[in-house]
Amino acid sequence: MAVVEISVTPLGTTSPGVSSYVAGCLQIVEASGLKHQLTPMGTVIEGDLDDILRVVRSMHESPFRIGAMRVSTLIKIDDRRDRAEHTMAGKIKSVETKRKS
Amino acid sequence: MAVVEISVTPLGTTSPGVSSYVAGCLQIVEASGLKHQLTPMGTVIEGDLDDILRVVRSMHESPFRIGAMRVSTLIKIDDRRDRAEHTMAGKIKSVETKRKS
Amino acid sequence: MAVVEISVTPLGTTSPGVSSYVAGCLQIVEASGLKHQLTPMGTVIEGDLDDILRVVRSMHESPFRIGAMRVSTLIKIDDRRDRAEHTMAGKIKSVETKRKS
Amino acid sequence: MAVVEISVTPLGTTSPGVSSYVAGCLQIVEASGLKHQLTPMGTVIEGDLDDILRVVRSMHESPFRIGAMRVSTLIKIDDRRDRAEHTMAGKIKSVETKRKS
Repeated sequence: MAVVEISVTPLGTTSPGVSSYVAGCLQIVEASGLKHQLTPMGTVIEGDLDDILRVVRSMHESPFRIGAMRVSTLIKIDDRRDRAEHTMAGKIKSVETKRKS
Repeated sequence: MAVVEISVTPLGTTSPGVSSYVAGCLQIVEASGLKHQLTPMGTVIEGDLDDILRVVRSMHESPFRIGAMRVSTLIKIDDRRDRAEHTMAGKIKSVETKRKS
Repeated sequence: MAVVEISVTPLGTTSPGVSSYVAGCLQIVEASGLKHQLTPMGTVIEGDLDDILRVVRSMHESPFRIGAMRVSTLIKIDDRRDRAEHTMAGKIKSVETKRKS
Repeated sequence: MAVVEISVTPLGTTSPGVSSYVAGCLQIVEASGLKHQLTPMGTVIEGDLDDILRVVRSMHESPFRIGAMRVSTLIKIDDRRDRAEHTMAGKIKSVETKRKS
């Protein structure tokens, strides 16, 4: 299982605001059924890596469908295979446990 | 005002788990007094860009202090100056508003 | 056509040096026949986006095959569709032309 | 010594082409005297980390000076302290040596 962060940014739009493009991407994640979390800087998705990459590919295409001519997409994969479970909640919990001790 | 995401990763540690290093970084952000949010893939901080970059510099140094010999740090700055306010909550709200409409 | 940068980093490898893992990734790009360039911080590939993403997927898998238990992969896609050609050489040339003027 | 990659992207610039902004950033690196390399996806700089971060801060400011209202900057630091030298050329050479063997 992998945890993946993605941010999709259209370039050369007339306005500095790009939230309508981001909203389009978010709807694609939501429709995928994959567990995800919207952050101020991107969307984090957890699950099977190939399932996630299919969704990521579709998210990247999304701004083009509503008029963007150039899209910059940043994807960060955290893929850990030494344990059965590797989740968004598990990662957060692990850091918070260490912080308290 | 800027919104900045940072993730600090030590390389060549004996274990694939690095949460104790991340916890050290988080304590630095907490001590800074800057508004921040821990995500499954990093830490997002909002505020004056130069204030944030000082904290980021200190976070990058943190793993070396507990034994790391190599650190890979990823910093993403979103700096918007066409409006008075540019915050983590504002960015999320903007996307969610667009999604509903 | 897209220009994509990828860097693949194994975590928990005991040694801070990871060039043998990077070399394995590079051999995958070379075998793909796609135009590419090794930089000090990653590998840049140009071509059809889906062709590139297939290679990227295989590069990400590479460190696991030689013992890594956790891999952090960063992918940055620059996809431009307002012109017929979008290449590594074209991007560099465009910046250098502007610099001189 | 550190090796750092930076890419500076203005948002909402009307045109998808942003090379004039990138050229402005490149001139700042050139004026700094730090060793650097322009790649198709960013600029890689080597040297003392604090020296580099001062240049990076100035590069990020550059698009605002010529009209951008929002700038997205990605910075990746590779900081290695287990050896005296950590350079762009050394990193490339290390990978190429492993590939041949």
